[in-house]
Amino acid sequence: MVRLEDARRIIAAAEKKAQELGQPMNIAVADEGGNLVAHVRMDGAWLGSVDISIKKAFTSRAFDITTQELAKHSQPGGPFYGIHASNDGKVMIFAGGVPLKKNGKVVGAVGVSGGSGDQDHAVATAGASAF
Amino acid sequence: MVRLEDARRIIAAAEKKAQELGQPMNIAVADEGGNLVAHVRMDGAWLGSVDISIKKAFTSRAFDITTQELAKHSQPGGPFYGIHASNDGKVMIFAGGVPLKKNGKVVGAVGVSGGSGDQDHAVATAGASAF
Amino acid sequence: MVRLEDARRIIAAAEKKAQELGQPMNIAVADEGGNLVAHVRMDGAWLGSVDISIKKAFTSRAFDITTQELAKHSQPGGPFYGIHASNDGKVMIFAGGVPLKKNGKVVGAVGVSGGSGDQDHAVATAGASAF
Amino acid sequence: MVRLEDARRIIAAAEKKAQELGQPMNIAVADEGGNLVAHVRMDGAWLGSVDISIKKAFTSRAFDITTQELAKHSQPGGPFYGIHASNDGKVMIFAGGVPLKKNGKVVGAVGVSGGSGDQDHAVATAGASAF
Repeated sequence: MVRLEDARRIIAAAEKKAQELGQPMNIAVADEGGNLVAHVRMDGAWLGSVDISIKKAFTSRAFDITTQELAKHSQPGGPFYGIHASNDGKVMIFAGGVPLKKNGKVVGAVGVSGGSGDQDHAVATAGASAF
Repeated sequence: MVRLEDARRIIAAAEKKAQELGQPMNIAVADEGGNLVAHVRMDGAWLGSVDISIKKAFTSRAFDITTQELAKHSQPGGPFYGIHASNDGKVMIFAGGVPLKKNGKVVGAVGVSGGSGDQDHAVATAGASAF
Repeated sequence: MVRLEDARRIIAAAEKKAQELGQPMNIAVADEGGNLVAHVRMDGAWLGSVDISIKKAFTSRAFDITTQELAKHSQPGGPFYGIHASNDGKVMIFAGGVPLKKNGKVVGAVGVSGGSGDQDHAVATAGASAF
Repeated sequence: MVRLEDARRIIAAAEKKAQELGQPMNIAVADEGGNLVAHVRMDGAWLGSVDISIKKAFTSRAFDITTQELAKHSQPGGPFYGIHASNDGKVMIFAGGVPLKKNGKVVGAVGVSGGSGDQDHAVATAGASAF
């Protein structure tokens, strides 16, 4: 279960990492049902990344995988190519979504958007580590 | 301008009011462009209200009005009846959206969803007062 | 045929009327195909009315009628009730859309949004008169 | 802040460039929130480009980048591949969107569509230069 206080701790850790990288981010946390628990847009972060951060969190929980990993399988020619058209357009297939696990089971996810794929993934990982 | 620290202060005031009412809520804050700055879902709040809270904040900024007031004009026979079909379904025409003003000018909005219309409006108003 | 220079003349006349009324507006002009020729958002006009003005122009041309008149037939119990759900949500059923006619034939439309229904209709009519 | 008079100056400069190139264009200007300020379709420009010009302006502001540059990162195998599925289909990943800057900060964008990618980019750049 991902409570609001968990989401806030995750977001705080992600924000700290984003500040270290000097890149403002959108950070979203989804629960076991893939539904949004909390979202923040850091000052100066991209407007278009509000939606993307929320969808990366959904995607990561929806398929119990990092979106960085999902990306590898979703390129043209890959086994999941076309998956971005499913779920009413809520599936994001690039880095920044990381599952939240409890006793080895995925119970939610963090989604981060606002920088390069590597930055987004690093910030999401920092957030997930605080869970 | 609605900064993340403003949004957090607004959300804290709204959460306090929701706790007093004993009704968990979704609370969203939008900026001058109608774009999301932050959102929280309090533990136990309705899942379907994540979307509604975000859209009430958008609506209130989009028309510089509380959604409680907009509701009056948007009923069958009213001058704005049918407005809920505009803006790709992002317009919510029931109470819970309240504009944020600075020097008399609307610069953002709060959207709250999770209880009765009166409760949502009261919580949004408490949030807006902290701006 | 509605050329860009026609649209600009129409918009200028509509803006003049809006300034007289002291109400900033969104003004859109559609051509014979119902497609947008030009749009302006006057400073301070509602953000949510960008979409509405464009859709009022589409609607007025799509059914060769003012949206004020269409509104009467589109209320619950009316013969066109439910028409707002057609055309992928592009049909607006409240005042502010006015057809552009040439030799008695509808060849385009003006859509205005930003004030009361009466204001929107008055500004759209002023625009259409300049055609 | 992008006022309507700014948008008109930008559009005039873009139109001038389009005329030099002999290619009619759709030209759109968005503000800091990514919302449309003004749009024109030059006589003879593609109908399908109305929507594209508006979305290029949104995209360029949403990610503070030219859509020509965004295109490079959004190809299959690239770090942002799949971004076109975000933001409810409003993200355009080909040339023609250019940010508007004030004191180094992005405060809006121009979107142009109607010719080749190079032509669209050249016309949008001419428009942005007039800001």
